[in-house]
Amino acid sequence: MNRSELDFLKSAVTPDSPVFSNERVVAWIQERRNATRVDVQQVAINQLLKWEVDSVSGNIRHESGKFFAIEGIRVETNWGKVARWDQPIINQSEIGFLGFLAKKINGVLHLLIQAKIEPGNVNIVQISPTLQATKSNYTRVHQGNRPRFLEYFNGEKKVKILLDQLQSEQGARFLRKRNRNIIVQLDDDEAIEQHADFAWLTIGQLKTMMLMDNVVNMDTRTVISGIGYGTCPSPTIDYLITMSPQKAQARKMLGSLLNDDLMFHDFREILSWITRLKSSCELTVDRIALRAVRDWSLYDGVLRRSDEKYFSVIGVDVTIDNREVVRWHQPMVKPAQDGLIAFIVRPINGVYHFLVQAKLEAGNFDIIELAPTVQCLTGNYRTGHNEYSVPYINEVLSAPSHQVLLDVVQSEEGGRFYQEQNRNMIVEVGEDFPLEVDENYCWLTLNQILRLIEFNNYLNIAARSLISTVSIF
Amino acid sequence: MNRSELDFLKSAVTPDSPVFSNERVVAWIQERRNATRVDVQQVAINQLLKWEVDSVSGNIRHESGKFFAIEGIRVETNWGKVARWDQPIINQSEIGFLGFLAKKINGVLHLLIQAKIEPGNVNIVQISPTLQATKSNYTRVHQGNRPRFLEYFNGEKKVKILLDQLQSEQGARFLRKRNRNIIVQLDDDEAIEQHADFAWLTIGQLKTMMLMDNVVNMDTRTVISGIGYGTCPSPTIDYLITMSPQKAQARKMLGSLLNDDLMFHDFREILSWITRLKSSCELTVDRIALRAVRDWSLYDGVLRRSDEKYFSVIGVDVTIDNREVVRWHQPMVKPAQDGLIAFIVRPINGVYHFLVQAKLEAGNFDIIELAPTVQCLTGNYRTGHNEYSVPYINEVLSAPSHQVLLDVVQSEEGGRFYQEQNRNMIVEVGEDFPLEVDENYCWLTLNQILRLIEFNNYLNIAARSLISTVSIF
Repeated sequence: MNRSELDFLKSAVTPDSPVFSNERVVAWIQERRNATRVDVQQVAINQLLKWEVDSVSGNIRHESGKFFAIEGIRVETNWGKVARWDQPIINQSEIGFLGFLAKKINGVLHLLIQAKIEPGNVNIVQISPTLQATKSNYTRVHQGNRPRFLEYFNGEKKVKILLDQLQSEQGARFLRKRNRNIIVQLDDDEAIEQHADFAWLTIGQLKTMMLMDNVVNMDTRTVISGIGYGTCPSPTIDYLITMSPQKAQARKMLGSLLNDDLMFHDFREILSWITRLKSSCELTVDRIALRAVRDWSLYDGVLRRSDEKYFSVIGVDVTIDNREVVRWHQPMVKPAQDGLIAFIVRPINGVYHFLVQAKLEAGNFDIIELAPTVQCLTGNYRTGHNEYSVPYINEVLSAPSHQVLLDVVQSEEGGRFYQEQNRNMIVEVGEDFPLEVDENYCWLTLNQILRLIEFNNYLNIAARSLISTVSIF
Repeated sequence: MNRSELDFLKSAVTPDSPVFSNERVVAWIQERRNATRVDVQQVAINQLLKWEVDSVSGNIRHESGKFFAIEGIRVETNWGKVARWDQPIINQSEIGFLGFLAKKINGVLHLLIQAKIEPGNVNIVQISPTLQATKSNYTRVHQGNRPRFLEYFNGEKKVKILLDQLQSEQGARFLRKRNRNIIVQLDDDEAIEQHADFAWLTIGQLKTMMLMDNVVNMDTRTVISGIGYGTCPSPTIDYLITMSPQKAQARKMLGSLLNDDLMFHDFREILSWITRLKSSCELTVDRIALRAVRDWSLYDGVLRRSDEKYFSVIGVDVTIDNREVVRWHQPMVKPAQDGLIAFIVRPINGVYHFLVQAKLEAGNFDIIELAPTVQCLTGNYRTGHNEYSVPYINEVLSAPSHQVLLDVVQSEEGGRFYQEQNRNMIVEVGEDFPLEVDENYCWLTLNQILRLIEFNNYLNIAARSLISTVSIF
């Protein structure tokens, strides 16, 4: 455990802070919501201002060629039950920043959060990173709309880097999209410009806020998920357990930070499992014209499947009335229904192990990424009338309440997804739950997951969303 | 340091073995060479049996659609001095096995090596892994030509996995090609079938053989490079240093296995450096018809650049006369001249640090990989009349002999490359060598490099070739 890992740990076990108390955070977000009016009107895609539907390919793109485009892909694979399909996909090749400024205040690391408005957000305003900017945003900026605090992230100002990773977005919606997840630390005595939309919170406070529906946005959650604590000395763990309000649970979670002896699989076995699956899986993704995508069509100004499953792409006219009024048009992805993502955790040798699923998604950077035990982002899981059975869904949905460690609704990113929400669950199962699992599942401890996240494209965004909420305290 | 890391370390510091002494290895390879006759005749590409030049695209492919194909790519990037180019590339999407059987003999781990004939090999026979097989080889096999020992690698037999990684091939020649580098361990008392082409060697013996020109093939070297030793306790290091014939050098190399305190950069800074470069680098690689590749043409049965630079693709008629006579046709890549790959190492705090270069190659899986300080695989480096200056090349070529830690000629893989050789060098520089380096270079210790290799696609095959030869002893 090095110095910054210890700082992260200390901040993560600080669930409230005198700097800006949880009570104030809640009131502040509510005040920002009240002060903001967002009007989103649906518009036919072919009538979006500054957007065009290509007359040959049917692809939907911005007239500048920047931002993003909706195109088609044709997928073939030997993985799972569906061997080939076509689908629309968002092509946004730029790597954007999801960045936090960090600073020690009263000896505890705090992150600078932003109350940010996004058109697709449930509840309009959510907690976001200090900087959330695409390359189009931050490279071709006029003086006026340069993103605030950019200079701490683009190398202009000298800072200490605590975390700096390329992490994936939704592989079923984006073609190989990644963002730079980054946390940089200011000197303790370095002052920054105050602003009403920004506040300093501990990591523990952010985790507390994540227990409420739709308060912390996806971009925040993915950065938080990347924070690792290394291997902790036993006395540190013991001390934290005595401090924790839920000692039994803290012991099972913190135990994974001890050392490798208590782990069901050693790390080499886990890497070998991933290698084996990537080697046997064949995946071909060809970019095709949106017009050539089978089963999908642009009809009545909406891009949708003939059976209306999964999602549609709609056009929206957005007006945001906050301190000033801004208005623009853009396409957005609208889900057919809400989804469910859930981890099953089971104590093995007294340490929680997460049942991780290796999942192929067509837009993945490297074939498969590790996903939650259950991920049916677009599945009709409530009725049970799904054409594909979802393993472990009954164990999740029928868990008695005392075994439900987490049950909260979280949004997808509000700049591309229109009011898309997923139920996020973590469910504990007992020692009677079978350790033997199918080839595409594996038991990992929290620390093993965090160690993989450190490298790019191992954990998918749904898994990271859940991991970000895990309280080690 | 876990059990298998200790076994690897022990084997790596055993430079000879009574099981099959170095003297016997050399004699055995020579005997295999004498007993083998390989005849390679150049044939026009359009006259290769079972291969065809597509009448529309000009792509060169096998009539079965399997094995590999020669296609074109069009590259655009903001990296380096050349913003766009076209080139032919080998498209071989299958993931093959490069696998070693391992077994403890007299308490020391030995690897089962094969004396293997490849048509492109300098010296015909080289030391190769136990199993070297493409998916076409091992999935559609008749009883007769099933690769030997396949059952230990494909899950049929239960074995202990010591290493299992997906590693890249030459990014300037292959489009996103990777192989599964794997070492599996037999029980100490498990007997396997004896065969005159196979022998058990320690890792230290393999490193000894790598000091001779063109004895150990590339596939062996890439697997050996993936072997990590973890973090060693100080007494183990001290003991090894006392045993080593070159104590001063052993101390500087083994010091990197101690702990992170002596490292010039901590691991987080290194990951951040890679993330920053990947984020700022733009690379677009479009697959195009070979016929559309600018500056290249199929003329007189050879695919070449108009200025004959870099490489050509030739057709060959291969006859191998060993125990039986086999004959086939195939295309091969032929280099325009030999290349040079070299690491500069510098002691910092008494520990060797390698000057690593971040390098973009069009076929890379993830934009850039870490390369040797100098890599001019195809550059005309000897004359100095290169259109692109090669940083650090003078420091490498003019190093006094007592600072040259390694200087040996090694071959590229002999199944695709025709007599392609590179001079492999490691050169030590003094403490007056500047620590400040350009943005695309960074100082890493051996252990930091080994830690990155554990994950896929961080170190390129040239860097891994050099790292495999590093004697920690």
